[in-house]
Amino acid sequence: MKFRIKNQDSQLRTGIVRTEHGKFETPAFIPVATLASVRGLDSRDLKKLKVDVILANTYHLYLRPGDELIRRRGGLHRFMNYDKTIITDSGGFQVFSLGFGMEHGVGKIADNIFLEGLRNKNFRGDKWAKVDEKGVSFKNPLTGEIVRLTPEKSMEIQSNLGADIIFTFDECTSPLSDKRYTEEALERTHRWEERCLESYDRKQSLFGIVQGGEYRDLRIRSARFVADKDFAGYGIGGSLGKSKEDMHNILEWVIPVLPEEKPRHLLGIGAVEDIFNSVERGVDMFDCVAPTRWARRGHLYVSPEAGGTVENKFRINIRNAGFREDDEPVDKSCNCFVCKNYSRSYLRHLQSAEDLTYFRLASYHNVNFMLRFMEKIRDSINNNYFRELKKEWLGY
Amino acid sequence: MKFRIKNQDSQLRTGIVRTEHGKFETPAFIPVATLASVRGLDSRDLKKLKVDVILANTYHLYLRPGDELIRRRGGLHRFMNYDKTIITDSGGFQVFSLGFGMEHGVGKIADNIFLEGLRNKNFRGDKWAKVDEKGVSFKNPLTGEIVRLTPEKSMEIQSNLGADIIFTFDECTSPLSDKRYTEEALERTHRWEERCLESYDRKQSLFGIVQGGEYRDLRIRSARFVADKDFAGYGIGGSLGKSKEDMHNILEWVIPVLPEEKPRHLLGIGAVEDIFNSVERGVDMFDCVAPTRWARRGHLYVSPEAGGTVENKFRINIRNAGFREDDEPVDKSCNCFVCKNYSRSYLRHLQSAEDLTYFRLASYHNVNFMLRFMEKIRDSINNNYFRELKKEWLGY
Repeated sequence: MKFRIKNQDSQLRTGIVRTEHGKFETPAFIPVATLASVRGLDSRDLKKLKVDVILANTYHLYLRPGDELIRRRGGLHRFMNYDKTIITDSGGFQVFSLGFGMEHGVGKIADNIFLEGLRNKNFRGDKWAKVDEKGVSFKNPLTGEIVRLTPEKSMEIQSNLGADIIFTFDECTSPLSDKRYTEEALERTHRWEERCLESYDRKQSLFGIVQGGEYRDLRIRSARFVADKDFAGYGIGGSLGKSKEDMHNILEWVIPVLPEEKPRHLLGIGAVEDIFNSVERGVDMFDCVAPTRWARRGHLYVSPEAGGTVENKFRINIRNAGFREDDEPVDKSCNCFVCKNYSRSYLRHLQSAEDLTYFRLASYHNVNFMLRFMEKIRDSINNNYFRELKKEWLGY
Repeated sequence: MKFRIKNQDSQLRTGIVRTEHGKFETPAFIPVATLASVRGLDSRDLKKLKVDVILANTYHLYLRPGDELIRRRGGLHRFMNYDKTIITDSGGFQVFSLGFGMEHGVGKIADNIFLEGLRNKNFRGDKWAKVDEKGVSFKNPLTGEIVRLTPEKSMEIQSNLGADIIFTFDECTSPLSDKRYTEEALERTHRWEERCLESYDRKQSLFGIVQGGEYRDLRIRSARFVADKDFAGYGIGGSLGKSKEDMHNILEWVIPVLPEEKPRHLLGIGAVEDIFNSVERGVDMFDCVAPTRWARRGHLYVSPEAGGTVENKFRINIRNAGFREDDEPVDKSCNCFVCKNYSRSYLRHLQSAEDLTYFRLASYHNVNFMLRFMEKIRDSINNNYFRELKKEWLGY
């Protein structure tokens, strides 16, 4: 993997990441293909949408259909017939968010496997994930079996999946973890990252992850740790605090410590406002399930021209009665085939009937919206109007 | 609407139907777009699949989003952005299948609205549809309200929906209805068909429907009745008996009575074996939800080259463990992008995760399969090898 910075203005920058499977431009929004598909879309759609990079989830694919099975199919690229860059996360986030999600009632744990586990009652009343020096044990939500993940195992699974870019196995702490525990977890994560560096598949590019919760000294210590190692890039992970301000602070502590010449990936973040503020602070890559997850819930992205604001989070809820007879497209400034061909009225109808076609059209629009939004962001950096664009969108 | 017969060999024939929205070739398989979408596909897919005609359900669209709303959108073609021929049924089948479905425990009533109604408990223990001379009253499964449909109302709704081809409002009887009741319903249906002829929108082409259950004299009486009226074509509806033989008999009684120069539509039928046997007896048009409904349940169509037989109904169940590591396409003789790009293993994985992408890919393949199958049928008639093709597929 190679990274080249194209334009830079203090932390603000554009660049190009090249892998064996082509290039993608940064700042990049990376759609999530949890189970080897961007939900509701197929790989032909991804081509049409010009999706040059996706992120698949190691945890989910390890449990189903299994990394060995995918290896026997020739790896993720062949399995899902996608020939551009693929990234896999390490599985750490999911394992630990199951753990602290239960204990602390926080975290983005409402995913499919989780819900299936609840339905199957494999979980009721159990503690979900137990961490020790070697790794972590947790219950497979699909079967109730105890599963073991270690740094070495995560590297092995990710090697089997065969993504271009992979992540170290880290322990994610909760926003409610205290400093003592966060520090203990951080030191363990650093030992795990060293083990990942020793065991990862050299055909892949390994990103280290900066942890440390909302604590300045821990975040800086963690950034220094990964900066000193031979990583291809850096993820900023774990709890980003309790407010947007916390998140901005974390980026301002961490990013100046990281080597300029390597890309920085802010894990799991993907809202319009957060992207503006993170790009400004030096983030190159974002991944988030938001476009497809919100789509399924009726939320469709709109630009300022179509009524998007910080307050409505650049989304309309197509379920609102006001759209019943609205013949306008979702976003009149959008170039996607959904906006060119269908009205809000039609989408609202399909959504209210929970029609499968709705999920597809809504996901397509939302993914396209994010990609075109990132193109604008990059253009504004390359042509020196990022602050004007940000003001136009966010009002500040 | 115009119908031209291209080639004919006793009852076997090919033809072309032309409407204001283009032409389609017969024998035709017509995908069902219940709620103004072929579930899981969009109108761009329909274009790629060369779907020249679809059938939407009056009953479903009347209840949601409402025919008036669709009229205000410019009709179904504009609402769903589909510019080829659209057919609507009359709503009769759905209303009555709710009625006799509850009383007799038969009928294809397991559709979405029905299930939603059950979940909402608007129905528990009620009688669903009450018929009188003027029309029928039934409970709206979505709201529990009493709704009234009459022949005139069905014509009005279908005019608002704006399809090219519409159907008369008929009373469907159950396979368990006795002859006395079937005859009474048939006479009433004939009176309703006359009222439809008086009140239908002259911009549309009205098909009459032959009823009469499994009774020879009633079927012939009904066929003579509609044959004498000024219909653009004929539907063969209602109970087709209790066996395939019953269905063949009904076609052999009815079709010779119907004018040769007008198309005949066998309502709600769409299995491979039934299509061969019905085309042989003079049927020109078929509609069925089977391709998309079976797709959702894991059943994918396969030709004889890929293992399809009368016994397996030309379907594989992708959920079978045997497909876990199967790198072959669903049907190696199939030209669709799903078969060109994805393995059975991948589809099985997506199906087992109930991934939305699965529903799309599976529906796409199944619809394509039926359309390409009909192309073969037409080619075999035009080039005089229908019986060989039938033997190759059915073994008889």
